[in-house]
Amino acid sequence: MTPFSYGPMTESLRLVQSREDLNTNWSELRARGAIGLVPTMGALHEGHLQLVDASRRACETTVVTIFVNPTQFGPGEDLQRYPRDLDGDLAKLRARGVDMVFAPSLVDVYRPGHETFVEVGPVAAPMEGACRPGHFRGVATIVLKLFQLAPADKAFFGRKDYQQTLVIKQMVHDFDLRIGIEVCPIVREDDGLAMSSRNAYLDRDERQRALSLWRGLQLAEQMCAAGHRDAAELKAAVRRELEESGRAEVEYVEIVRDGTVSPVTLVDEPAVVCIAVRIGATRLIDNHKIGS
Amino acid sequence: MTPFSYGPMTESLRLVQSREDLNTNWSELRARGAIGLVPTMGALHEGHLQLVDASRRACETTVVTIFVNPTQFGPGEDLQRYPRDLDGDLAKLRARGVDMVFAPSLVDVYRPGHETFVEVGPVAAPMEGACRPGHFRGVATIVLKLFQLAPADKAFFGRKDYQQTLVIKQMVHDFDLRIGIEVCPIVREDDGLAMSSRNAYLDRDERQRALSLWRGLQLAEQMCAAGHRDAAELKAAVRRELEESGRAEVEYVEIVRDGTVSPVTLVDEPAVVCIAVRIGATRLIDNHKIGS
Repeated sequence: MTPFSYGPMTESLRLVQSREDLNTNWSELRARGAIGLVPTMGALHEGHLQLVDASRRACETTVVTIFVNPTQFGPGEDLQRYPRDLDGDLAKLRARGVDMVFAPSLVDVYRPGHETFVEVGPVAAPMEGACRPGHFRGVATIVLKLFQLAPADKAFFGRKDYQQTLVIKQMVHDFDLRIGIEVCPIVREDDGLAMSSRNAYLDRDERQRALSLWRGLQLAEQMCAAGHRDAAELKAAVRRELEESGRAEVEYVEIVRDGTVSPVTLVDEPAVVCIAVRIGATRLIDNHKIGS
Repeated sequence: MTPFSYGPMTESLRLVQSREDLNTNWSELRARGAIGLVPTMGALHEGHLQLVDASRRACETTVVTIFVNPTQFGPGEDLQRYPRDLDGDLAKLRARGVDMVFAPSLVDVYRPGHETFVEVGPVAAPMEGACRPGHFRGVATIVLKLFQLAPADKAFFGRKDYQQTLVIKQMVHDFDLRIGIEVCPIVREDDGLAMSSRNAYLDRDERQRALSLWRGLQLAEQMCAAGHRDAAELKAAVRRELEESGRAEVEYVEIVRDGTVSPVTLVDEPAVVCIAVRIGATRLIDNHKIGS
């Protein structure tokens, strides 16, 4: 299924699957210069790979982590069926020039008796935090752990998970973590659908309906550019697009001040339209900056 | 009041009072070899200084932090009146050969908008955790922050705060922090009172009554050695000693398996007697290992 073929593991991409191996290898990486970290849950797409590209431009060494983190999934969410394709992921990462992949086992990451977590604050409360209780607690905890296990100079995240990037930046600031957080642009398919590992869940009909997300976001941008600055009006228009043309079940449509999760009533400064919907059984999120 | 005199600041003890200064100095320290960290809230006594000694034996460089951490005090606790004596502390630390003191301001540690904390688990629930809600959340948060601000190889804590050492070890384990935790023995006055900055609150009568803590702990040890292994019987005897000879208000007397906070019913393996009392307005804790 992967467009890349690959031969036996070579020196160019090192696969590390335990914390002991990681420790053994880290000082050698460290000696080469700046290390860039790209935390992922695997099932890699072009969005992830552009994080890799950004890391390779900024750092001497690029390390990608692949770990489907159970603590960020709620009960009834898609932890069990989340797509997993380590061989395909490794082929893509090798082709993109990654130096090391850290793909630990579950018990190596959360060892028996694990009980300490990151308590996230108000930045994690609305939107994704309200729809997915405990999600950001799990995200912040695994990111903190990865930053300690694989201490890098910079870490790269995608802006598609807009609120996640804010939660992580807040944690880095509040816990004084010595790592730079780089946020990279959303990568879209040719027809505008934001790339996501969860797009694989969509059947042909749902895939078409999912285009309503990008249409809704573009509509908000166009209306805003045409002078419609009232957030309630913009949100209503986006919601109509999602519900009517996409037959989507809307979880939220929110417009927040750029760089925050604070809702705006008037778009008189740069703002971000954030949406979460269900198309069939698949939950999708997207966002877009307007008013800048 | 301090037995040490000291002249102007010399190269031998560097006082750093901001995170920027700390960052500037850290790589030079790092180049000298292993760094030992001794986190304190100041008002230093011989217990703290023996942590310094342990660090100096184990590490090339010893850094002491002095910061009265507000997030570990509950409402109505003694944050405001907690003893502060930076000049006296510096004199003691210089005499003991400390290389650097990090004594940051409150706003430099908890910057505006701080909202992320460490969520501690079951190890933090009983005893001190039950009597002081939020205490260990604050302790774990500041210790995590200090470990990031001042990344050392080992950190030194006193066993007088027995449960605190377990909470910190649990956090280090669960968050994969790259630091070794060293726990040093309780240091007692000649008459047995465990050294504590809070002993300064005691008046002469209270100081005498406070001896009931060590008498109670010794009683438990003697009874245990004489074959009394029933935890309920031992706890009752300790409580009687505290209440009757010490006129202390007992918050808890607990006997837990050594290295845990799990209560035992029978002392058939090494256990720790943990006590917390109030003598007048002063809250004191102490503990002692028995059955080993």
